[in-house]
Amino acid sequence: MSYNSFGRVFRFTTWGESHGPALGAVVDGCPPGLNLSEADIQPFLDKRRPGQSRFTTQRQEPDQVRILSGVFEGRTTGTPISLMIENVDQRSKDYSDVAQAYRPGHADYAYDAKYGFRDYRGGGRSSARETAARVAAGAVARLVIPEVRIRAWVEAIGGDSIDQAAFDAQEIDRNPFFCPDAEAAHRWEALVDAARKAGSSLGAVIACEAVGVPAGWGAPLYAKLDSELAAACMSINAVKGVEIGDGFAAAALTGEQNADAMRPGTDGPAFLANHAGGIAGGISTGQAVRVRVAFKPTSSILTPVPTISPSGEATEIATKGRHDPCVGIRGAPVVEAMMALVLADQKLLHRAQVG
Amino acid sequence: MSYNSFGRVFRFTTWGESHGPALGAVVDGCPPGLNLSEADIQPFLDKRRPGQSRFTTQRQEPDQVRILSGVFEGRTTGTPISLMIENVDQRSKDYSDVAQAYRPGHADYAYDAKYGFRDYRGGGRSSARETAARVAAGAVARLVIPEVRIRAWVEAIGGDSIDQAAFDAQEIDRNPFFCPDAEAAHRWEALVDAARKAGSSLGAVIACEAVGVPAGWGAPLYAKLDSELAAACMSINAVKGVEIGDGFAAAALTGEQNADAMRPGTDGPAFLANHAGGIAGGISTGQAVRVRVAFKPTSSILTPVPTISPSGEATEIATKGRHDPCVGIRGAPVVEAMMALVLADQKLLHRAQVG
Amino acid sequence: MSYNSFGRVFRFTTWGESHGPALGAVVDGCPPGLNLSEADIQPFLDKRRPGQSRFTTQRQEPDQVRILSGVFEGRTTGTPISLMIENVDQRSKDYSDVAQAYRPGHADYAYDAKYGFRDYRGGGRSSARETAARVAAGAVARLVIPEVRIRAWVEAIGGDSIDQAAFDAQEIDRNPFFCPDAEAAHRWEALVDAARKAGSSLGAVIACEAVGVPAGWGAPLYAKLDSELAAACMSINAVKGVEIGDGFAAAALTGEQNADAMRPGTDGPAFLANHAGGIAGGISTGQAVRVRVAFKPTSSILTPVPTISPSGEATEIATKGRHDPCVGIRGAPVVEAMMALVLADQKLLHRAQVG
Amino acid sequence: MSYNSFGRVFRFTTWGESHGPALGAVVDGCPPGLNLSEADIQPFLDKRRPGQSRFTTQRQEPDQVRILSGVFEGRTTGTPISLMIENVDQRSKDYSDVAQAYRPGHADYAYDAKYGFRDYRGGGRSSARETAARVAAGAVARLVIPEVRIRAWVEAIGGDSIDQAAFDAQEIDRNPFFCPDAEAAHRWEALVDAARKAGSSLGAVIACEAVGVPAGWGAPLYAKLDSELAAACMSINAVKGVEIGDGFAAAALTGEQNADAMRPGTDGPAFLANHAGGIAGGISTGQAVRVRVAFKPTSSILTPVPTISPSGEATEIATKGRHDPCVGIRGAPVVEAMMALVLADQKLLHRAQVG
Repeated sequence: MSYNSFGRVFRFTTWGESHGPALGAVVDGCPPGLNLSEADIQPFLDKRRPGQSRFTTQRQEPDQVRILSGVFEGRTTGTPISLMIENVDQRSKDYSDVAQAYRPGHADYAYDAKYGFRDYRGGGRSSARETAARVAAGAVARLVIPEVRIRAWVEAIGGDSIDQAAFDAQEIDRNPFFCPDAEAAHRWEALVDAARKAGSSLGAVIACEAVGVPAGWGAPLYAKLDSELAAACMSINAVKGVEIGDGFAAAALTGEQNADAMRPGTDGPAFLANHAGGIAGGISTGQAVRVRVAFKPTSSILTPVPTISPSGEATEIATKGRHDPCVGIRGAPVVEAMMALVLADQKLLHRAQVG
Repeated sequence: MSYNSFGRVFRFTTWGESHGPALGAVVDGCPPGLNLSEADIQPFLDKRRPGQSRFTTQRQEPDQVRILSGVFEGRTTGTPISLMIENVDQRSKDYSDVAQAYRPGHADYAYDAKYGFRDYRGGGRSSARETAARVAAGAVARLVIPEVRIRAWVEAIGGDSIDQAAFDAQEIDRNPFFCPDAEAAHRWEALVDAARKAGSSLGAVIACEAVGVPAGWGAPLYAKLDSELAAACMSINAVKGVEIGDGFAAAALTGEQNADAMRPGTDGPAFLANHAGGIAGGISTGQAVRVRVAFKPTSSILTPVPTISPSGEATEIATKGRHDPCVGIRGAPVVEAMMALVLADQKLLHRAQVG
Repeated sequence: MSYNSFGRVFRFTTWGESHGPALGAVVDGCPPGLNLSEADIQPFLDKRRPGQSRFTTQRQEPDQVRILSGVFEGRTTGTPISLMIENVDQRSKDYSDVAQAYRPGHADYAYDAKYGFRDYRGGGRSSARETAARVAAGAVARLVIPEVRIRAWVEAIGGDSIDQAAFDAQEIDRNPFFCPDAEAAHRWEALVDAARKAGSSLGAVIACEAVGVPAGWGAPLYAKLDSELAAACMSINAVKGVEIGDGFAAAALTGEQNADAMRPGTDGPAFLANHAGGIAGGISTGQAVRVRVAFKPTSSILTPVPTISPSGEATEIATKGRHDPCVGIRGAPVVEAMMALVLADQKLLHRAQVG
Repeated sequence: MSYNSFGRVFRFTTWGESHGPALGAVVDGCPPGLNLSEADIQPFLDKRRPGQSRFTTQRQEPDQVRILSGVFEGRTTGTPISLMIENVDQRSKDYSDVAQAYRPGHADYAYDAKYGFRDYRGGGRSSARETAARVAAGAVARLVIPEVRIRAWVEAIGGDSIDQAAFDAQEIDRNPFFCPDAEAAHRWEALVDAARKAGSSLGAVIACEAVGVPAGWGAPLYAKLDSELAAACMSINAVKGVEIGDGFAAAALTGEQNADAMRPGTDGPAFLANHAGGIAGGISTGQAVRVRVAFKPTSSILTPVPTISPSGEATEIATKGRHDPCVGIRGAPVVEAMMALVLADQKLLHRAQVG
């Protein structure tokens, strides 16, 4: 209900700016008795961590998480879990230009228009660094839904899509793009290198799938599973579109084409298709829950763009500093985290109402 | 925060099933002193009302709204506004088949899986009839944001899109499709007629624009204007995708292409483009706020589809009854309502924090 | 989270003014499959209903409740339950004086100061009539917690308390005061009659007990069972104080006196006392949950009181109309309802987090 | 809406256990542009800090607060403010007995009953140490309401009340009891010393007053100013009762006695009395807002009390360790903080709805 919290009964609040001393999340409503240590969280932060290849920002952040509360003798107690990650490699001097001119496409102008004031260092609160807190919270959420396996991958960069026929889940962790198609990953190396060298940036599309969600999670109408997922994914920096199942493609289908026909199965129905992305009427059907998310290209680019200064004068800006040439790439672990956070909340909400 | 409410300080709750005695909304947090009577709400309900052309369901519902509270001597008092619409033309007998088999693509199976039980008459709570309550609440929301003009239209039906060059705002109210392109409207007559006669259905894409939103509404991060709009639109029955501004197309652009360059303007910046859909960093920029919404084809179709019964046996179902051949058409006034409801809430939230 | 809603997962919203066409409640988050009809609600409304003795307001309201949604074939469906009660005997002319002068102790001045405007008929939204909606919602809540028996009674009127040694639960329903002490009830007849004839009014203290609440409901810290009960009771019109267990008396005890010592019991501990009112650390202990609530005397009195007019001139007001000489009496069923509503919510919250 | 958050638009979340590495609060929704540094918070923490006299726990905690986010160049940015206080003097060995037996009156049994598990070191989350986080958040809230002066004091200890006629505001900060009556403070020295030496503990009553609250803050009905204050105060550890204005005493008055008569004043009405404690119909009247809060005696006492072990066997417990002989004393700054937090939230809520 407040501006920096998400979830209803499994709820988290994030805090922290790109260039402050630290950032973190408070996870509230977590069930008691779950085994939890920093080691359960760190691998997910490591996946998202910058500086691991030349295709992401060169900022070096160890992103070591500390659990400050809510765990006793290795188990969650049911009280709020405070997670903190210190900022180590913030170089504020890189951002002096940003104070003098609004970066088009960035939050600079809107923040100033709202607050009359902003923390211009590295985008402050609007920096993608905030997503580290989500990933940490998401790792806790995963413990709440052990029955669910969540996997995200990059489906397209700069308009160049994977070949769905070549999809190989094993491949996702073998390249720096979370790309399930080895050939596409190869092409993307050249694509992203070129963008980086040109001082440009690229957009991306992330797909995410949750397998093992039982039928019945979600709720009509304003806590619909799909509505919550849409809010969760659109709350990530740089996201401009969200689809459930076939998404916009479904708008071009007929009712027969779009119907996920059912046959008797061993445990519930056997569906003959999954156009719906595992959600009907806001409630999970037991099929894989599928979401696709569009990330715009990074707005901090070296190419000069016409803009204005805070005092309203014409100027142009070329953003120096260490930016991701394609912020969408590191979006994959963030979308996974948001999927986990939404599903954990919906599981507990379902348990509240239906038992 | 509950399942059937939306909004933070301007908040509404809807109730009612397709075939119950009535449906309605309670609008809470409305500022006092606004002129409000049924006549302010009825025109919006009339736009959404079924049975007005052969392209929508033939159910005849006058959809007369009554204001039961919150208004005194023609003005809002600041207390909750209860809005009620009676159901008149519910024919439950039409739905007897639905009790015996799950309609693929519909909420039938998921509701049963969740609740062990459902109101199968006309989809019960999952019926698009619920959107009448949203439209009524949305009419109240419009009074809170008189500075904003909201307009939605149908951009594509069954994969056949309008010609953006032929866009004529005047045309939207001249055809039964809310279509801004007269030629496309002409083609859609044939398209929807054919689908109707074939017992099939079609998807649609709705676009919606809000002009006059000042820079500064919205909030990082989980009450972002775009996140709220995504949740609001995805909460509408049959919606499967939401885009802000260029949406998925932005994922194929470079940073330079996607940058909405700024020049000094008369009152704030003059933007040279609006790829962002009027929202940056979750906060409005002063440009038009733009959203696109994908509606899947109506899942209740006459064409038989393989399915199972509640007891798990193989069967097939052809849904008789009076259904929209393209539920997306009547989605236009509903998307407008959700836009108004989100913006009213964000205006008040902004006022709360920033004054 | 909004102004007229209460609860977290079992949540209700009330609407309606004293002299509007109707009032009601929307109950959201109710579990599915519970048997529910108007007959389950009406008896509780009848207990609260005005005009049943000369000791309450003479307004004649049948207070017939209608269920407008959320129930199908006699069972709750899990969707919102809309409850409506029509106002029948509203006589607005009685209130013409109230428009011209603020009643001291009443909400008149504060409403005008807030909203610049008010519905002065019968107190509008601040009328005790709103509590009918709570009682209706509370009847639904009781179905969620069949393991709990809730009972409220009047403990004091106008400073004259019952004799705790004479407490007889059977007596509560045998007199018009919900008084468990026959002798006190006898005294109160004279006391309330005298106040009524003098154009005066009296305060009262209500006690309420819930037996059968298992250990473990509630939560640290801001959803504590006692914190929720305090908010719920203090939200009732005319309430000025709330105590859990010994309340203010506990502040005069020593630690040893206040300790509820434990011995091994058959099922959990056998407590040797219940100073804590069944709640420790915000969580139920398995003992009876006990709350006491102070109602101020009705502020609408026939005795003239110095006041000012909306334009700020000195005047005095004697409130004609039909008022309860002791609004606390009819508070007993209202406090019961709030107890049920809080416990139902806490039960579901507990189930969400702990399973 | 979650278990460890409070407030609607000005909202805070606390985390941390008595014996963990740290505790803290995240304050969300704070207006931008307020001057804020650690020096604005520290004095309030110092007032509440333990170990300052022999009348409070001897635990030595510097309670140094750090601001980790939400402030840039000395001003709030509008983004979440993360406050952290490290625990320094936690001696877990003191609490070994507590693991073996439930302290009567403490949260021990209830926590185990709820979570099947608890952090028994120093009461874990149920420790009064959590209130340090509230006091820090409250210091931020004060900046939001510079028009309001808040002052709390101790009105009674162990049943020994101050003489209202001897009330001297200057005296409050001159003795270790926040006592406005020098003579009572003198008596309390002996009283608390005796309790401490006897291994016993005492309850207390705190009064708190907010002057300068304009007429109009608050809301009917479930966000009433009094309802929010009741929830806020009852959420403090060890609190068992809350009164607004005359509270329970009002229940013994007649309508004439309780009426706060009005005369024309210079700016709004001049009230002739303040039985209502500055709140009517849930909304502030412009008078001083007054609340009284009952603290039970500390439940951790040296005197042995019969109890049971987690495995259900009869035993007794005498709680060693460093406890406040009267936890209510340090409750004064905590009640002040809750008053500030509620008023800041209500001010912003009022601004949202009414402008």
